[in-house]
Amino acid sequence: MERKHNFSAGPGTLPVEVLEEVQAEMLEFKDAGASVMEISHRSSQYSSVEESAREQLKALLGLSDDWHILFLQGGASMQFYQVPLNFLGENDVADYVITGSWAKKSHAEAKRLGDVRVAATGEESQFTEIPSPETWTNTDESSYLHYTSNNTIFGTQFHATPQVDAPLVCDASSDFLGQVIDVDKHGLIYAGAQKNLGPAGTTIVLIRNDFLAKRKDDLPTIMDYGTHTSKMFNTPPVFAVYVVEKILRWLTNLGGISAMQIRNETKAGVLYERIDRTEFYRGTAEEASRSLMNVTFRLPTEDLEAAFVDYAKTSGLLALKGHRSVGGIRASIYNACEPESVDALVSFMDEFERLNG
Amino acid sequence: MERKHNFSAGPGTLPVEVLEEVQAEMLEFKDAGASVMEISHRSSQYSSVEESAREQLKALLGLSDDWHILFLQGGASMQFYQVPLNFLGENDVADYVITGSWAKKSHAEAKRLGDVRVAATGEESQFTEIPSPETWTNTDESSYLHYTSNNTIFGTQFHATPQVDAPLVCDASSDFLGQVIDVDKHGLIYAGAQKNLGPAGTTIVLIRNDFLAKRKDDLPTIMDYGTHTSKMFNTPPVFAVYVVEKILRWLTNLGGISAMQIRNETKAGVLYERIDRTEFYRGTAEEASRSLMNVTFRLPTEDLEAAFVDYAKTSGLLALKGHRSVGGIRASIYNACEPESVDALVSFMDEFERLNG
Repeated sequence: MERKHNFSAGPGTLPVEVLEEVQAEMLEFKDAGASVMEISHRSSQYSSVEESAREQLKALLGLSDDWHILFLQGGASMQFYQVPLNFLGENDVADYVITGSWAKKSHAEAKRLGDVRVAATGEESQFTEIPSPETWTNTDESSYLHYTSNNTIFGTQFHATPQVDAPLVCDASSDFLGQVIDVDKHGLIYAGAQKNLGPAGTTIVLIRNDFLAKRKDDLPTIMDYGTHTSKMFNTPPVFAVYVVEKILRWLTNLGGISAMQIRNETKAGVLYERIDRTEFYRGTAEEASRSLMNVTFRLPTEDLEAAFVDYAKTSGLLALKGHRSVGGIRASIYNACEPESVDALVSFMDEFERLNG
Repeated sequence: MERKHNFSAGPGTLPVEVLEEVQAEMLEFKDAGASVMEISHRSSQYSSVEESAREQLKALLGLSDDWHILFLQGGASMQFYQVPLNFLGENDVADYVITGSWAKKSHAEAKRLGDVRVAATGEESQFTEIPSPETWTNTDESSYLHYTSNNTIFGTQFHATPQVDAPLVCDASSDFLGQVIDVDKHGLIYAGAQKNLGPAGTTIVLIRNDFLAKRKDDLPTIMDYGTHTSKMFNTPPVFAVYVVEKILRWLTNLGGISAMQIRNETKAGVLYERIDRTEFYRGTAEEASRSLMNVTFRLPTEDLEAAFVDYAKTSGLLALKGHRSVGGIRASIYNACEPESVDALVSFMDEFERLNG
């Protein structure tokens, strides 16, 4: 058994201590006489897991009682549909900021349902930077402004919450709880768990009461956020929520979001410093937009990039290949990625350059 | 650590050997250098898990290449919406057979979207029996006929596939792979995994090519079955599919669906025989409609029922309380429930009657 340094873009690495807890409880969860996967989702044992996850999210993000916390299914792609289905009425307009592939998909899905406008796009610069909010052409009276806080493919990230008049809707799938944000500017925040928060299979949705109240009438039951804010409607993805709860405890014990942000800035800083140190490696994102989560860079040739990925793998460094749509190298260093893994990558980069530079 | 006899109606008990395998692989899946939850859903390691699950389902059910096998999210409740969204066009009619609470919910959701008719309902007899197909008032030219093959709350089950002209759509959530069915009468079969097939978090959808071809145009991307039959659209619920694959192997090793049906008939036979032996226990379902999966019965008084559930629990027999909407006792004896658990329950029933009868 040998765990490697794992830079997977998602599903991403998880804290080993969380996996060890899951392993220890696999045949019996607490004194339930069964695993957590084999008990009613309405049992006190499972309810206390969800309750604990909610309490920790509230504390970590400083959420007031105005916020609902949901554990839904279907990933961010389901939210691309569910958000406009709930909030884009016949006479409404919504603004979308396009900063990469996922943002484009969320915009395309909303366009099927109503009047959506592009407030800004980074397409002209091949998504290498986050368009500055001062340049956005926001629509007055838009129902919401949708943005993607981190872009896994292009390695860019918002480092401050956009200050606009409309309620923000954020796809935070790939940097949720990785840096401090201004929660109260948002009406809704969603995040597929499998990058920064747990295993694939649950999507955390935070939704503020006054925003929720503006949703349309007569929605399909399961697609109506109100169905889920009022009660446990159907069987949740029990195991995924159970792992998320443990990761929230791990994150709380490490000091919460500000501590995590410092840890992430340090990890990313070490890696970008190594990239910038010589001409051999070349970062693909503009400096001010560089992501703390997905560090993307190129080597002098595609052959060298392929060799880099392969040689890294045999050296115990996994999943460094860039997204198939853009190529290059991508090191995903989400919350659970240990600083030691980044150090190992930097050493490997030094060695690879020495041999091939 | 002590695993109890678990009669949970869902999420239900899982084979202990499957849990032990999951436990052993928790820190590293095969030679991946990471757990199955931490690797790309497009990696060869995870792809081979999905591939194996599909191959086994094909073999177990004797599916031709006309069938697609999907691992979706959202549970049966999502299918209540997705089925009519795809297949109930403006000028279409669909028939629904109402045999319990879940069937009512699927019907209610479809009614929001189009013209649906009730071909039969067991409501007058409080859902204690499955209405005989000879009495159904099917609509000519209906796009599909929807039925629920097993009713967890009322303890009833179809024991033969209905022979009607329209393509069948079956909610098989609570008896999938538990008895032999006539697959080819169906256009679509769906099953939330958490009762008979695995942990909560994935829904198996089988869909036949010619039925798929009749779906509506311009559907929301993620709700369109065609999105998922043509490629892996988004991150699947990796861990749930991984456990399902193991359970399919366990089921195959036990001899497949016919062997499982015999095992289920034997378990249920033992339990119904004990219920019928004296007047103390009283089965709630009509004999011909009795479920092999959920055995529901009453005791002379509600006080005795409460005492039965509590005393059973302290005797190591879990989750015997009937659904909150109907009361009484319910023993869920899904595929993974071992015959020894049923024997233990029967012994307990003997003792409880001796002390209280």
